[in-house]
Amino acid sequence: MMTNDPKRFGAQAFARLKALDAFSDHPDHLERLYLSPAHRKAADAVVAMMHEAGCDSVSIDALGTVVGRYEAKEAGRPALLIGSHIDTVKDAGSYDGMLGVIAGIGVIEALHEAGERLDFAVEILAFGDEENVRFPSNLSSSRAIAGSFDFSTLDGRDENGISLRDALIQFGGDPDGITALARKKEDVIGYVEMHIEQGPVLDQENRPIGIVTAISGASRRRIIVTGEAGHAGTVPMALRKDSLMTAAEMTLAIEKIGAAAENGVATIGQMQVEPGAVNVIPGRVRFTVDARAPRDSVREKLVADIEATIRAIATQRKVQVEIQPFYDSPAAPASTAIMQGLAAAMEARQMETRYLPSGAGHDAMVMGALCPMGMMFVRCKDGISHNPAESMTEEDAGLAIAILLDFVRSYRPT
Amino acid sequence: MMTNDPKRFGAQAFARLKALDAFSDHPDHLERLYLSPAHRKAADAVVAMMHEAGCDSVSIDALGTVVGRYEAKEAGRPALLIGSHIDTVKDAGSYDGMLGVIAGIGVIEALHEAGERLDFAVEILAFGDEENVRFPSNLSSSRAIAGSFDFSTLDGRDENGISLRDALIQFGGDPDGITALARKKEDVIGYVEMHIEQGPVLDQENRPIGIVTAISGASRRRIIVTGEAGHAGTVPMALRKDSLMTAAEMTLAIEKIGAAAENGVATIGQMQVEPGAVNVIPGRVRFTVDARAPRDSVREKLVADIEATIRAIATQRKVQVEIQPFYDSPAAPASTAIMQGLAAAMEARQMETRYLPSGAGHDAMVMGALCPMGMMFVRCKDGISHNPAESMTEEDAGLAIAILLDFVRSYRPT
Repeated sequence: MMTNDPKRFGAQAFARLKALDAFSDHPDHLERLYLSPAHRKAADAVVAMMHEAGCDSVSIDALGTVVGRYEAKEAGRPALLIGSHIDTVKDAGSYDGMLGVIAGIGVIEALHEAGERLDFAVEILAFGDEENVRFPSNLSSSRAIAGSFDFSTLDGRDENGISLRDALIQFGGDPDGITALARKKEDVIGYVEMHIEQGPVLDQENRPIGIVTAISGASRRRIIVTGEAGHAGTVPMALRKDSLMTAAEMTLAIEKIGAAAENGVATIGQMQVEPGAVNVIPGRVRFTVDARAPRDSVREKLVADIEATIRAIATQRKVQVEIQPFYDSPAAPASTAIMQGLAAAMEARQMETRYLPSGAGHDAMVMGALCPMGMMFVRCKDGISHNPAESMTEEDAGLAIAILLDFVRSYRPT
Repeated sequence: MMTNDPKRFGAQAFARLKALDAFSDHPDHLERLYLSPAHRKAADAVVAMMHEAGCDSVSIDALGTVVGRYEAKEAGRPALLIGSHIDTVKDAGSYDGMLGVIAGIGVIEALHEAGERLDFAVEILAFGDEENVRFPSNLSSSRAIAGSFDFSTLDGRDENGISLRDALIQFGGDPDGITALARKKEDVIGYVEMHIEQGPVLDQENRPIGIVTAISGASRRRIIVTGEAGHAGTVPMALRKDSLMTAAEMTLAIEKIGAAAENGVATIGQMQVEPGAVNVIPGRVRFTVDARAPRDSVREKLVADIEATIRAIATQRKVQVEIQPFYDSPAAPASTAIMQGLAAAMEARQMETRYLPSGAGHDAMVMGALCPMGMMFVRCKDGISHNPAESMTEEDAGLAIAILLDFVRSYRPT
């Protein structure tokens, strides 16, 4: 009987992850976009794995999500959901998303082998549209479950002009069945997702596992600095209204503000300099700011501080500045019950708990609107993800599944 | 008899400048590239103006330079050269270059009307290849006079694939006659060029005229900062190796170093950020530095300070940096005799002298290798040039020509 053996969990998980690696739409690297042929094959493989693990029922829903259910002591009880996704970015790694699905399969397999039924059902959800690479949708497969599906995205098209609606029908899905996917709140008692961290914190601190406190909210701004172009030789430094020098001062100030915010980050990912000639003082610079924090009040202050500082620097340097907001999304806090349950499972194994926010978005963000939500992060080497160099150890995977199993066994929703 | 009447000089100069405005290769704006049909027409017009002013001989040389000579008391004496250029950038203003040619014409006209012959001849040179827009040449028409013509540029082509050699023949020039254009040092006693400042210093200080101390040397470097790309949400600020934050710190340091150098300037005109996504920490930033100073020792220290600071910032932020030099040109100091002569002419009119470097290149830079060189700057509105908004007053032009005439009359080469 297999009860809770991290080593065996790790080996089985890695075998299943390796099996999924085979399903790619690209011959040379891993690429499994939503509703592609490789996605369909991977979904079918996950169906088989769920059956093999002992799920009582397995199906692929109207949006392509693979759903496996392991019943409670009494049939028809509400379910604890364990989910993540099996779609990938282009030229992807093997663990981002797939780990959480395989972990759910490992948990049910262990319960099934032990002949153990809980007071609640356990369901695994293998979502298909988390990376948002192919269509202009956003976490559509988890949104459908949470009842927040945006039907306008059905008309969105991929780069070949194929609509999400047509691709869904081609895949074997059913646009008319989406509404019925929404779960009733009384049918679910929680959603838990295991995911590689996609950041360097756990790896740097040499910890295998972290407990997510919240998925950070994000605010994005486009900044346009308009000074005065001029000849690089003839305009003395004191008489310049240099847009790039201004933008550089703003950039460093934003770095400082971001570093001072509690668990906050601020990133300038794009910057364009005009006219962009070696011997011309830049007349205009455009750049973006992406600011995130796990608490909305922190993010709001972060953004307000950044905007005020940008305006002050522009005023002081006598240049014009325009600030254009183009994205604001609130934070999704994790459930205290789930955080405490995960912490108890870690402490029972003499592991120190490490709480950290998720700076990246996940299906859990959407599921938090339906039910208590929580996430476990597993360290990945150097924090690298969305890259074939994405890497984690079998040992960490096994330990994480063991802790997830302990958590599930003792979970009591508040 | 017209001796030295600034008002009349201004009116005549502006009439001639306006006449030259008519010769454009573009129907909607002023565009007169080297050896174009408009250049030919403008050159012919300048020939006529030189004859009208009283030049004893006028010709268009093998490279298209219009040369007008007003003999000394004795024929065949060495000449003081007054020059500038009649080619323009695309969508140009009316004064950049043309002012200096028209000023020379005004000076000879005044001498001729007064029946006055000097101990030296006076020649006007209307160069045709100063802006270096059409061909990959560099001040070729003045280089030929100074004996530094680069014959490899004859094979350079414009954007239509026409070589400089073929365009020159088409224009009526003679590639085989270039070598003979080089003047002997004993035949020239100086070169003086009047030019709009193309910078804001005189306009800001409300002065009509400045005396150029030197044409600044320039050094250019390409900087490549390589940090680590990463997810804008998942990498805490303290664990980042952000190429753009590093480049911003370098940029501000360069601004400070440039401002501290005596008459120095430092410009970052180009910056590219990679990968350039709103939610990705920049992994690489490439930018250019253009540093200039009128004294080579100042420029060399300026560049050395910039390079050392760039390396120190990279080391402190634990990112890689590469510094690629791609241009270094020394300063061309103005002749003390010419600066003193211009100062005396200004002081005689109770004008305060203002010395300033030229941050932009001019034909005078090349001519300085042949003979004592000097330049007068005339204020232009807001320092704007290379633009149809380029503007100066008739009054300033008249005053500048009067001073140039005073200078020429009393010039004694050292």
